Amino acid sequence: MWRATILTLFPEMFPGPLGLSLAGEGLAQGLWSLEARNIREHGLGRHRAVDDTPAGGGPGMVMRADVLAAAIDAAAPADDARPRLLMSPRGAPLTQKRVREFVAGEGVVILCGRFEGVDERIIAARALEEVSIGDYVLSGGEIAAMALLDACVRLLPGIMGGEASGEEESFESGLLEYPQYTRPRDFEGRAIPDILLCGDHAKIARWRHERALELTRARRPDLLARDGKKR
Amino acid sequence: MWRATILTLFPEMFPGPLGLSLAGEGLAQGLWSLEARNIREHGLGRHRAVDDTPAGGGPGMVMRADVLAAAIDAAAPADDARPRLLMSPRGAPLTQKRVREFVAGEGVVILCGRFEGVDERIIAARALEEVSIGDYVLSGGEIAAMALLDACVRLLPGIMGGEASGEEESFESGLLEYPQYTRPRDFEGRAIPDILLCGDHAKIARWRHERALELTRARRPDLLARDGKKR
Repeated sequence: MWRATILTLFPEMFPGPLGLSLAGEGLAQGLWSLEARNIREHGLGRHRAVDDTPAGGGPGMVMRADVLAAAIDAAAPADDARPRLLMSPRGAPLTQKRVREFVAGEGVVILCGRFEGVDERIIAARALEEVSIGDYVLSGGEIAAMALLDACVRLLPGIMGGEASGEEESFESGLLEYPQYTRPRDFEGRAIPDILLCGDHAKIARWRHERALELTRARRPDLLARDGKKR
Repeated sequence: MWRATILTLFPEMFPGPLGLSLAGEGLAQGLWSLEARNIREHGLGRHRAVDDTPAGGGPGMVMRADVLAAAIDAAAPADDARPRLLMSPRGAPLTQKRVREFVAGEGVVILCGRFEGVDERIIAARALEEVSIGDYVLSGGEIAAMALLDACVRLLPGIMGGEASGEEESFESGLLEYPQYTRPRDFEGRAIPDILLCGDHAKIARWRHERALELTRARRPDLLARDGKKR
């Protein structure tokens, strides 16, 4: 079973949205597991402190390396082969390719930062992989962890209704997804493109590929350049 | 008050993680509002159908334009000035700059797609702005909407404890954030860099800026190129 362990100051946020829909059904069926552990259990002193002021000054608080080390070691012993992720805007941007790699493994351990971030030393000391879900700042890593888990879980065997679905989507082919249409044929004077109603599957596939390529060139030329592929 | 309206097939996912921590406290204090509306209320027939098979064939189901139009029109009349967003991996990648623009407005209306996506015609017919939180595929737009809202809400007046915090973070300066350290001074043989303990604030600020620049050059040269700034 694919296992997710979350280290957080807000374990009550989980499973949250992951307890419903595809991910939630998979959880109920035992297709994956989710454990949210409270970092504060490893906090120091009477107040179970997990953070302290930044060395060198500055606003906010920084999560202590010793507290995080204790939380990580309790959740994932050294022989736990799962990657240890730190959700952070400084990390490598998450891609569908990296999602597929996570899915192929045994699961993930995710540390959710809060406040001004974590003491830098924990990253090297516990070989954390910094992962960013995008170029914006969240109040903590929890929703970022949910996004990563949702992206992974929908690809686990047995989760998705139509197994073919996963293959035709944005990024799976390196392109943005072609436009979709459904009934009614006329919507407020806007018609479904005739070609989609012609019944010639090869023609339709070609049209869709051209639209996907056109959209990607217009909106995300970086995706084409990144792959370095000719299409 | 900054207002968020969500159109979803899973209104019970909200507020979810946004009901706790900074965002949740702000919600309780009336600093922002969140309304999750069920698209299915506008579904068709006895089964309240919201989707149909893709024109031209292919796996999965597509959300109908007429159903979505009814849901949007009921939630946000034509004179509602808030941007209407569609969370979609085909959209423009969300940036901290766009987050700041949303925060400066009256709020947002967010349509959460599911299945293979939405009928393309609804996007033009209701002037939807497609927004992507990153280059990976989710099971639906709900967690993406939560990420966008969390990024916005933490910047609303009155929400963040330390008001200065927002300014020193990743992306606000166009750079990734410099490394942070806190007590203990020695962690598993790893020391806090001496310069952070020297008490010379100008020197510390310079060191931090250099580290931020170094990190950004190494990990995200695209951020420097994007701005076209010299530092």
